[in-house]
Amino acid sequence: MSTNKLPTQAEDFPAWYVEVVKRAELAEHGPAKGSMIIKPHGYAIWELTQRALDDRFKATGHENLYFPLLIPMSLLDKEADHVEGFAPQVAVVTHGGGEKLEEPLAIRPTSEAIIWSTYKRWIQSYRDLPLLYNQWANVVRWEMRTRLFLRTSEFLWQEGHTAHATADEAVAETLQMLEVYRQVAEGVLGIPVHMGRKSPGERFPGAVETYCIEGLMRDAKALQCGTSHFLGQNFAKAYDVTFLNADGEQEHAWATSWGFSTRMIGGTIMAHGDDAGLRLPPAVAPIQVAIVPIARTDDERAKVLEVAGKLRADLAAQGIRVRLDDRDQHRPGYKFAEWELKGVPVRIELGPRDIAAGQVVMASRLGGEKEAVGLAEVASGMGDRLASIQRELYADALAYREANTHEITTFDEFATGIEERGGFWVGAWCGDAACEAEIATKTKASIRFLPIEPADPGSPCMHCGAPGVDIAHWARAY
Amino acid sequence: MSTNKLPTQAEDFPAWYVEVVKRAELAEHGPAKGSMIIKPHGYAIWELTQRALDDRFKATGHENLYFPLLIPMSLLDKEADHVEGFAPQVAVVTHGGGEKLEEPLAIRPTSEAIIWSTYKRWIQSYRDLPLLYNQWANVVRWEMRTRLFLRTSEFLWQEGHTAHATADEAVAETLQMLEVYRQVAEGVLGIPVHMGRKSPGERFPGAVETYCIEGLMRDAKALQCGTSHFLGQNFAKAYDVTFLNADGEQEHAWATSWGFSTRMIGGTIMAHGDDAGLRLPPAVAPIQVAIVPIARTDDERAKVLEVAGKLRADLAAQGIRVRLDDRDQHRPGYKFAEWELKGVPVRIELGPRDIAAGQVVMASRLGGEKEAVGLAEVASGMGDRLASIQRELYADALAYREANTHEITTFDEFATGIEERGGFWVGAWCGDAACEAEIATKTKASIRFLPIEPADPGSPCMHCGAPGVDIAHWARAY
Repeated sequence: MSTNKLPTQAEDFPAWYVEVVKRAELAEHGPAKGSMIIKPHGYAIWELTQRALDDRFKATGHENLYFPLLIPMSLLDKEADHVEGFAPQVAVVTHGGGEKLEEPLAIRPTSEAIIWSTYKRWIQSYRDLPLLYNQWANVVRWEMRTRLFLRTSEFLWQEGHTAHATADEAVAETLQMLEVYRQVAEGVLGIPVHMGRKSPGERFPGAVETYCIEGLMRDAKALQCGTSHFLGQNFAKAYDVTFLNADGEQEHAWATSWGFSTRMIGGTIMAHGDDAGLRLPPAVAPIQVAIVPIARTDDERAKVLEVAGKLRADLAAQGIRVRLDDRDQHRPGYKFAEWELKGVPVRIELGPRDIAAGQVVMASRLGGEKEAVGLAEVASGMGDRLASIQRELYADALAYREANTHEITTFDEFATGIEERGGFWVGAWCGDAACEAEIATKTKASIRFLPIEPADPGSPCMHCGAPGVDIAHWARAY
Repeated sequence: MSTNKLPTQAEDFPAWYVEVVKRAELAEHGPAKGSMIIKPHGYAIWELTQRALDDRFKATGHENLYFPLLIPMSLLDKEADHVEGFAPQVAVVTHGGGEKLEEPLAIRPTSEAIIWSTYKRWIQSYRDLPLLYNQWANVVRWEMRTRLFLRTSEFLWQEGHTAHATADEAVAETLQMLEVYRQVAEGVLGIPVHMGRKSPGERFPGAVETYCIEGLMRDAKALQCGTSHFLGQNFAKAYDVTFLNADGEQEHAWATSWGFSTRMIGGTIMAHGDDAGLRLPPAVAPIQVAIVPIARTDDERAKVLEVAGKLRADLAAQGIRVRLDDRDQHRPGYKFAEWELKGVPVRIELGPRDIAAGQVVMASRLGGEKEAVGLAEVASGMGDRLASIQRELYADALAYREANTHEITTFDEFATGIEERGGFWVGAWCGDAACEAEIATKTKASIRFLPIEPADPGSPCMHCGAPGVDIAHWARAY
């Protein structure tokens, strides 16, 4: 671990991010351009996030399956908007087994094409519907400017792909999965998010409607945290997926897709971190409690490690993820800084005097203040303590977002404000794509979301003055 | 579900396999040559296998991480044996983002190259060792002749990659993970396996020693079920990974790697299946208990579904994976056949007369005999019942293997026997690669494994008559 001070968030947020990712050993760049190595501390956050999502997918009736990585180019080309959106980002395999392939293969940038060409075989009758499937997979989207977790050529995600007999059912599914994403973002990652609808220009290529959850990072920039798409019958038509409905008529199936990715590790870093490093929500902290023994002599060390070992076992028995840091090459102060940097929610210090007093010294990563706690109460009280830290982190992030959300009164105030302070800016929009594009050019901000149902703002567009048809949240975004 | 009879195992085992994979909805071919779509029933078996492996990896101190899919070709080329072994199977990306790449990228066929080129940065001192890492990933190896699960261009697996300060420690790790594989193969998948060592000709490209677990399928052919490699310092030398040892000297690190893949879904099918379809070990059965309600009138149906629903809840509360098959478009007989085909260990039939008698009719997938069980005892007794089925399946497979293992007395007897009956044939071997190759040509069999430690057979080579130096298990294999 480097002992130089981290850049502060205030002086250089991007540099702070890069250094935290590196020093907390979350990830690093791989040898191929834009690629990422996710290190154990980063991957463990992802595993815990996966489990939280997967449990909820199954509880809402979904099953996992797995489609191939490689997709014949001709298959990708069938949905016009979809191919237009993704073709520029595709990595292409031209050789295999030492020979040039007859047809080049795309590495999946997303799997609608291969999945809907397969659903054609799986769907014949309304009795085959709905199909409620999800896959955990890697995808590749060629990127020129990469940033670890946030934008990499390859990333890990889940992509749900469902098929339904009616539009209403598909829309309900789309919104149900958006709600699942909200629950995981807020309840597990501790990131308050808005649920909303993208403007037409920001829709997923091939979607009729794209819904999203959108969070605010501690540099007052927005992050899209997950998307859920109502695809209408676009893919069913492109891949000729019809079914016999209950009235005996052939109909195209209705589709949804929804994805949540390793990008959210970046979101978790940026939504909670401070100038000392990561602050991890206990629900996804690979280590929830670090025990640092303090001893000067070998005798003291033996004694302290014995008590610490028992404490570790007691905590583990409560289902707490605990690490006893018994490394002898580092001093306690070094260890404190390391666990702080790595975002461990609770640190326990244990020395001979503590043992004599039947206590430990406990420090929360949030406040940092130290507190003496009776040895006998440590394990039994830890669940509540972690739950309270989880709530506090969320409350902190929510307060930050509220403090950085502004009503737009005039366009000029918005343009100046977003340059100076970032944040969400909320105002009436005319619904015109040209107006949206003009605002984006002037402010480097984009519409992060509109309300799920269009809402009459009761006032004219804050930019062009035409009648307002919707209320937009604007922000600069990752 | 097709209602035609399956081909029997005796008349055409390969056709039986293909039909079971298809009709039990485990997998199907994808659009790109050699690719596979793993359907929910197949993927759920994999998820349960993953969980069993991953728990044991973590219990033995390993952490998960993730390395990139795409590897610069120049990186792959550094370990001579390794590249020679894998180059012919590599899929190559030449274009990305609409442009030709400066350097082509290989899709990983395995990750030693990218991982050891990274370990160079992670390993400086003996204090950095051991590195005990694993990743869950997809890999691509170009295959001309594919068979679902057993041999596909892309497959899913885990690959462990560890680095150690001493050869002894690395060898101990190699054997520890082989033992973990044995536990999962036998205890979870119910497949009895031999632990052994490959002959030099069958080693992993770049390994000093390859260990394996090897099982016997119900067509008397062997299946390699997992491998664990002691890589010596080969990769450390190829990628220049040195560390300062405790004596202050620079040394190359010692390596292991070990893998277990979706191929084992194929192994589970072939080790246990019978002429009615799959027989799944309860530990990896996505559905452990299927409840089939029986009713003729709407009144009966309502009554039966109420009791069945309560039974389902009681079983689920015991942690049993249970499915209540309340589809109204199929008759009970159709459902019985479907759950049999899909390998569900226990079927429960429940009709109005059963309810009146306070019982259910229960059938095990193993024997098929029906048995009346008191309604109140069903849930509480199910754990034991499933554990007993798990043991029986293992015992069955073990008895089959023992009955199909033969001591070689003369080469001719072996050559005739393996042609007629398959199975394992055990005999003295001289250790000469040319002799091994000659036997392979004559018999289409290969040495599946040697004992972990070379064992003096006390007799001359069964083929060439030269002094025996080891005891080989021969078989025809997948």
